[in-house]
Amino acid sequence: MFQVDLNSDMGESFGAYKIGGDDQIIRSVSSANVACGFHAGDPMVMAKTVQMAKENGVSVGAHPGYPDLMGFGRRKMVLSQAEVKNYMKYQIGALNAFVTSAGMRLQHVAPHGALGNLCQYDREVSRAIVEAVYEIDPELIIYYCAGAVLGEEAVKIGLQAKAEIFADRAYMDDLSLVPRKEEGSMITDESIAIDRCVRMVKEGKVIARSGKELDISGDTLCVHGDGPKALAFVQKIRERFQQEGIEIVSFQNRR
Amino acid sequence: MFQVDLNSDMGESFGAYKIGGDDQIIRSVSSANVACGFHAGDPMVMAKTVQMAKENGVSVGAHPGYPDLMGFGRRKMVLSQAEVKNYMKYQIGALNAFVTSAGMRLQHVAPHGALGNLCQYDREVSRAIVEAVYEIDPELIIYYCAGAVLGEEAVKIGLQAKAEIFADRAYMDDLSLVPRKEEGSMITDESIAIDRCVRMVKEGKVIARSGKELDISGDTLCVHGDGPKALAFVQKIRERFQQEGIEIVSFQNRR
Amino acid sequence: MFQVDLNSDMGESFGAYKIGGDDQIIRSVSSANVACGFHAGDPMVMAKTVQMAKENGVSVGAHPGYPDLMGFGRRKMVLSQAEVKNYMKYQIGALNAFVTSAGMRLQHVAPHGALGNLCQYDREVSRAIVEAVYEIDPELIIYYCAGAVLGEEAVKIGLQAKAEIFADRAYMDDLSLVPRKEEGSMITDESIAIDRCVRMVKEGKVIARSGKELDISGDTLCVHGDGPKALAFVQKIRERFQQEGIEIVSFQNRR
Amino acid sequence: MFQVDLNSDMGESFGAYKIGGDDQIIRSVSSANVACGFHAGDPMVMAKTVQMAKENGVSVGAHPGYPDLMGFGRRKMVLSQAEVKNYMKYQIGALNAFVTSAGMRLQHVAPHGALGNLCQYDREVSRAIVEAVYEIDPELIIYYCAGAVLGEEAVKIGLQAKAEIFADRAYMDDLSLVPRKEEGSMITDESIAIDRCVRMVKEGKVIARSGKELDISGDTLCVHGDGPKALAFVQKIRERFQQEGIEIVSFQNRR
Repeated sequence: MFQVDLNSDMGESFGAYKIGGDDQIIRSVSSANVACGFHAGDPMVMAKTVQMAKENGVSVGAHPGYPDLMGFGRRKMVLSQAEVKNYMKYQIGALNAFVTSAGMRLQHVAPHGALGNLCQYDREVSRAIVEAVYEIDPELIIYYCAGAVLGEEAVKIGLQAKAEIFADRAYMDDLSLVPRKEEGSMITDESIAIDRCVRMVKEGKVIARSGKELDISGDTLCVHGDGPKALAFVQKIRERFQQEGIEIVSFQNRR
Repeated sequence: MFQVDLNSDMGESFGAYKIGGDDQIIRSVSSANVACGFHAGDPMVMAKTVQMAKENGVSVGAHPGYPDLMGFGRRKMVLSQAEVKNYMKYQIGALNAFVTSAGMRLQHVAPHGALGNLCQYDREVSRAIVEAVYEIDPELIIYYCAGAVLGEEAVKIGLQAKAEIFADRAYMDDLSLVPRKEEGSMITDESIAIDRCVRMVKEGKVIARSGKELDISGDTLCVHGDGPKALAFVQKIRERFQQEGIEIVSFQNRR
Repeated sequence: MFQVDLNSDMGESFGAYKIGGDDQIIRSVSSANVACGFHAGDPMVMAKTVQMAKENGVSVGAHPGYPDLMGFGRRKMVLSQAEVKNYMKYQIGALNAFVTSAGMRLQHVAPHGALGNLCQYDREVSRAIVEAVYEIDPELIIYYCAGAVLGEEAVKIGLQAKAEIFADRAYMDDLSLVPRKEEGSMITDESIAIDRCVRMVKEGKVIARSGKELDISGDTLCVHGDGPKALAFVQKIRERFQQEGIEIVSFQNRR
Repeated sequence: MFQVDLNSDMGESFGAYKIGGDDQIIRSVSSANVACGFHAGDPMVMAKTVQMAKENGVSVGAHPGYPDLMGFGRRKMVLSQAEVKNYMKYQIGALNAFVTSAGMRLQHVAPHGALGNLCQYDREVSRAIVEAVYEIDPELIIYYCAGAVLGEEAVKIGLQAKAEIFADRAYMDDLSLVPRKEEGSMITDESIAIDRCVRMVKEGKVIARSGKELDISGDTLCVHGDGPKALAFVQKIRERFQQEGIEIVSFQNRR
């Protein structure tokens, strides 16, 4: 029997500003990466998102980012290790208040945007993140993009690490994602994309853009909920996973 | 044997901006009210302040305020109950990450500035605050200005409430503080101020500006650390308390 | 020949967050109230909005608000007169940089949200606003809700003031809007709403909710561009105005 | 007769937070670089600083920075050219409102912190800045660190550019400042520092750390006002300049 987690970024609205179809996608995933108020999200949105996750049996993780609402956390900032570490603690702690007061337990931490991208290769930033997480709660799980040094640093410090894969993105030979601006970065054929997902989860293999077969851990699959097309795609993934005997379940909810 | 807590607001610096003599006053108090990043404070400041508290055996409380750094939380904002509640959770949770990762346990919550002032008489705001605190951790203590409805609401929901008193401020007959702009608002004579403190702690009595004797609970005395004069005054209070057999100890550290 | 200005709030997006159908409504109005980065808007959005206004021959006004992005400027803040005045200057100046560098001239100032609501009756706040505007440029026009003291204060200091009316809102006897939560606050029948607009513009009369006929100045009509229904309604207003011989033209563009 | 401008960063306080001895240093300089609310400063501080400049006959320039109050604009952010350009326009415009409403005219623009550092060699960022300034007002002057490409880009677009020099910093052979962490970065001997200033202004020469003699333009000398020692040093510079026949005067105030 195969198991996989299905995650989506959520709670990225802010005040009067709405982003994402959280109330739809929440019904299809097993885990939610909830924004923590720095790059997106605010206390009202966080409370509501955690409540929605609870009602739908979805496990909650923190999705911390740079303190840059105007740039949605997508612009690199040059921060010290201590700054990264303390910004992580702040955001994870803030979300944790909503999680624990809903009678839940925080499951994981998945860094957002430009900060998350740095974790592909930057050991200093990765270490700052895993130290923050470990010091808050050594039971928390780190979500890292398959191939990222963040995963190694998480394991080194004593945290569980789960590799995140993407249905619609092509991989370089080092498992980094082909940058969006480059040709062939997106897997546009849905049935090919789903085939790839199944193989990543069941066999731990994926074909890179170069044609080379790579080893990959497919612990948690990231999906999007913005718009009817994205939602329909998630539905197709779910159906195919069922046919393939792949159970969609968060890490927290596994026996 | 009498006991009293000595508290001070701390961690109100922000980025390159320094406020308060935290490294001095931390040696003289038993509890610190630490700003949580909305009206003041940032993750670096919070980490440092909690560390200082730990090293000095000082208990830590959250000092949450309005999301108004430009106004230092001193300007009233008209918020819904849900907004107040979730803003409290966010801030308390954020601080809690630093406290628990330092191996400590958060002791109390003391609302700041204009939000704190509202708690004197506003039951809706007070209820929002105590609900947030109770849902996070029913063991947390509420600090309220002696006479404030916040204390009543805290007890009603099942929280411990501790009354805060001020050495240098005059009281109205309803235990509210005489507004700073009014005559006689400050107790300028230090020895009279200290006499009043001793009596509030030992006898639970204070003379109002009107001359009337009032009942008051003196659980925790608020002191300031800004400047050499303030620090010297705290030192005098400490010496007199020792002579009077009043032990200065936080609530967490009582046997 | 009758003339009226048609205005709409614009440029209220922020970073990755989109609000409003600016690219649609810009084609139907004569003036745009552009957010200035405090309650909404950011420099990128402001640049783009001003550019769009220029391309569509639309006059630009500043739409300043409280420094409260999380509350979209809809929550009352208790500010000093000096604070209001300087916050206005800051925002108007910031927008003005985009307007002048596009080779345009700022036409007007229309306060937003909770700050705008205060201008109905609060002379101190109104005076702070008109002083800021006058000191920046005495040629700027103040938009005020018909009946608001802001209009009187504008005239008193030597500014032009133009009364704003609403197609879909009912009026109290003092020309204040019937609060949204109250029954009868909205004029839901579109043809009645448009009849009322025509009468306000041509005759300067409107029937209050009480049934009483009121004098009202209808200099500028506020319309919304959020969604196809709102856009269709604006289209109907435009057609009817044409039939009635009411020319839609901004104040800046009148000969 | 030689002339030099003496400038200092000012208006970097924020809300309740005070930084710098503006009320002292304002008496000794000819130009003020005023923070614009992104990395530091707020509308109240800007109004007060401009007023102080006016009363002391000091010319005012804008000192725009990254939108990073928590990092005081000292942390590099990776922004697009359009973002830099529009962030500049926003800040310069905001300050300009205070300057024009004080009956003054903005003199110059001097980028702050990490953004300013980029201007040493980054042509894209420099071009974004000079385009913003030129589009607002082609009469504005650019202050650039002697040797920075910002100066070249300013001239290329048609702006006046003035080279800024530092009394207490050592130079590399390419006129960039020796980084603070490196040995020999500071000129600690005050009389040597002042001798260097005089030579930079009168002869346009300075000795690099390497011992090599460099050509340098000394149009405007940057001084600091934080603390009695800094103020005394400025006083010594002023006295020596007088002896040497170097007049301290802003660019705006030259006949």
